[in-house]
Amino acid sequence: MKELEQQLDFILELDNLKRVYRQALVKPDGNRQENSAEHSWHVAMLAQTLCHYAQEPVDVARVVNMLLIHDIVEIDAGDTFAFASEHELDGQQDKEFQAANRIFGLLPDTQCRHVKELWLEFEAANTADARFAKAMDRILPLLQNMQNEGGSWARHSVKRSQVVERNKYLEGLAPELWGYALEQIDLAVEKGWLLSG
Amino acid sequence: MKELEQQLDFILELDNLKRVYRQALVKPDGNRQENSAEHSWHVAMLAQTLCHYAQEPVDVARVVNMLLIHDIVEIDAGDTFAFASEHELDGQQDKEFQAANRIFGLLPDTQCRHVKELWLEFEAANTADARFAKAMDRILPLLQNMQNEGGSWARHSVKRSQVVERNKYLEGLAPELWGYALEQIDLAVEKGWLLSG
Ligand SMILES: [Ca+2]
Repeated sequence: MKELEQQLDFILELDNLKRVYRQALVKPDGNRQENSAEHSWHVAMLAQTLCHYAQEPVDVARVVNMLLIHDIVEIDAGDTFAFASEHELDGQQDKEFQAANRIFGLLPDTQCRHVKELWLEFEAANTADARFAKAMDRILPLLQNMQNEGGSWARHSVKRSQVVERNKYLEGLAPELWGYALEQIDLAVEKGWLLSG
Repeated sequence: MKELEQQLDFILELDNLKRVYRQALVKPDGNRQENSAEHSWHVAMLAQTLCHYAQEPVDVARVVNMLLIHDIVEIDAGDTFAFASEHELDGQQDKEFQAANRIFGLLPDTQCRHVKELWLEFEAANTADARFAKAMDRILPLLQNMQNEGGSWARHSVKRSQVVERNKYLEGLAPELWGYALEQIDLAVEKGWLLSG
């Protein structure tokens, strides 16, 4: 029973991700801020739907799992805005490592190790699975902002080059999606939702 | 490009699940109602964490996918309370089938067929994967209510026998979890959160 109790403690801890609010807005819900739990679901669905665009072999079940757990550290460390300054990001990585130790540490040893490794793989983005997961995590806000008059880009005066840089994981990995992202970014500049430059 | 447009229409449609509110409450976020998108994430994490309790072989990647999509029809059909009366459920199944046709129908044909079949499998609960997915979907509100002084049970005067019946999928499939659920249910009666009988 000890093992089950540990697992259920972990599951109940996850409730806290539903109160971590991000910069993205939920347009159909009165433009309230999106939380990281519903975002994790949405990005897992995105990966599932677009996985066949990957040019390298990716294991979609691993990518989905990675995306389901990728933001859990935010329970302790909070969400950081995609285009936060270096200054604002100071100490963030340490906080996230501590969070991973505490939260994944609620699980029995073997599961803890497995989830922590998956999270570290996502963070390092050195494998095709992790790069594809990162690419999905980065293109989803683009899709959301394009539906919402520039959304968080417009509110934070984000520049074209920042969004291009952020979506570069797509370039080699999924050229068709990369082409689509570039088109959308140019459209956003035209509409005045992104600063040129 | 046509295919990508269909896939992105589907992805943007999914934003609407974030405004479908359920009876479950998010305790750490001021007891606001939970939405079906964040619930879908949470229950996918639960399945991932507890899959080794299944006594029949289950394909956890399929179970996770099933749970990620299981509530999407609520975008059109709305959420129904677990213990709604027959009268309240009138016409619900028709609404859900129409919703599945419309929403999954946004996807290219092959993907549409695949997702619709997965959803129908979940609904029918005739396979081990679907039964395990159902069991996870049903035990999660139990865990949440036990953390929250009976939560939706207490507010709706739910009876012990209703919750036992609802969690029966666990009985043959995951006896250790079934034992745990029964213990918790009895504790809930003791505390006055569930009506005996
Ligand atoms: Ca994040």
